[in-house]
Amino acid sequence: MTKASPELQVLYDGKHLTFVRRRGWEFVQRKNISGIAILVAVTSEERILFVEQHREAVGGSVIELPAGLAGDEGSETGEEAANRELVEETGYRAATLEVLCEGPPSPGLSDEIVTVYLARGLTREGKGGGVGAEDIRVYEVPFAEAYGWLDARRAEGRLVDPKVYGGLALAQRRIDGALVKSR
Amino acid sequence: MTKASPELQVLYDGKHLTFVRRRGWEFVQRKNISGIAILVAVTSEERILFVEQHREAVGGSVIELPAGLAGDEGSETGEEAANRELVEETGYRAATLEVLCEGPPSPGLSDEIVTVYLARGLTREGKGGGVGAEDIRVYEVPFAEAYGWLDARRAEGRLVDPKVYGGLALAQRRIDGALVKSR
Repeated sequence: MTKASPELQVLYDGKHLTFVRRRGWEFVQRKNISGIAILVAVTSEERILFVEQHREAVGGSVIELPAGLAGDEGSETGEEAANRELVEETGYRAATLEVLCEGPPSPGLSDEIVTVYLARGLTREGKGGGVGAEDIRVYEVPFAEAYGWLDARRAEGRLVDPKVYGGLALAQRRIDGALVKSR
Repeated sequence: MTKASPELQVLYDGKHLTFVRRRGWEFVQRKNISGIAILVAVTSEERILFVEQHREAVGGSVIELPAGLAGDEGSETGEEAANRELVEETGYRAATLEVLCEGPPSPGLSDEIVTVYLARGLTREGKGGGVGAEDIRVYEVPFAEAYGWLDARRAEGRLVDPKVYGGLALAQRRIDGALVKSR
C-alpha cells in the first residue's frame, strides 16, 4: 500500500480513512494498518463460519466472512492479527492459517490489499461477537450447503458481500487438493 | 445505496467520490451512478474474459473482471450499462446476461452495491480497450484453466482482484446447473 508519494494530495484527513487524490484519481487510504485479513474458517465438523454485522455505509446488516485489520493494535504479524480477529469475531482460534490469495478488492476506490486465509484446526476460546461497540452475529453453516444457505439469506432480502463466494471457491479448491487438477 | 439521510455529514465533496461520515463511520459514496456491473463473460469457445488496467489507488495494474458504472452516462438499464461497459472494455457484446449475485463488495468503506452477471452469447462488436484515457488489456483464458492462469499471473507479481474468484465460482455453479445440486 502506497502511503505517500510526491503526487499524493490529501483532500480530507479523517479519523479512520484519508481521502486522497493522485493523478486525477480519488480514493481512500485506511489509516494505521499494515494489512487486512479475510478468513475462510472451517470447523472440524466441516462448517464454515459467516458473520453478520451492521454496516453503516450500506445502512443495514451484511453477511460476510470474518475479517479484520492488522497493525492497528500494536506490533503483530499478519497471521497473529488474523487469528486475533477470528477470536474476537467468532470465538474460535485456528491452529493453521494458509494463504489462499492476496489482492486489492476495491482497486477503483481504495489502496487496500487483503489476504484471504483458510483457517483450520479451530478451537473455541471465547464467545465472539466482536469487541467494543461491535455486535457481530456468527453462523456455522455446513460447507457443502454454503451456497444454498447464502441463496436463502439473499432471498430473504439480506445483503451478502460477494467476496464470500471467492473465499468459498478458493477454500474448496485448496481442500480438494486442486493444485494437481486444472480447476 | 443511501444517498442522503439526516445524519449524513459530507466531509469532502470530490469529483467522483463524496467522503462522508454517518454515526461515526467514515465511507465514500460514488457520485451520479445507479449501480455497478461486474461481468463474468464467457465466449462460445468457453473462454473467460479478464481485463488488466492501471489502478492509481494501488499504484500498479490489476487483473479484474470487466466492470463498469451504470447511470453515469444517461438513462439506461443495468443490463444496458453492463453490455455497454463490456463492449467498451472487451469489444464483445453479450446476447444474454444473467444475474449471479448482488451485494456490497466493500461495506466497510463504501455504499456501493455491485451486480455480478454471467454474460454469454458473445459477439465481437469493437476492439475494446476502454474509452478516453482508459488503457485496458483484454485476456481470453480457457475457463477450465482460469485458476491456474491467475496463479501464474500472481506468481509473476501481478495484482489480482480477489472478486475474480467469486465470479468464477458463481459462473461455474450456474453453468453446471448447480441449482439442483447442493454445491
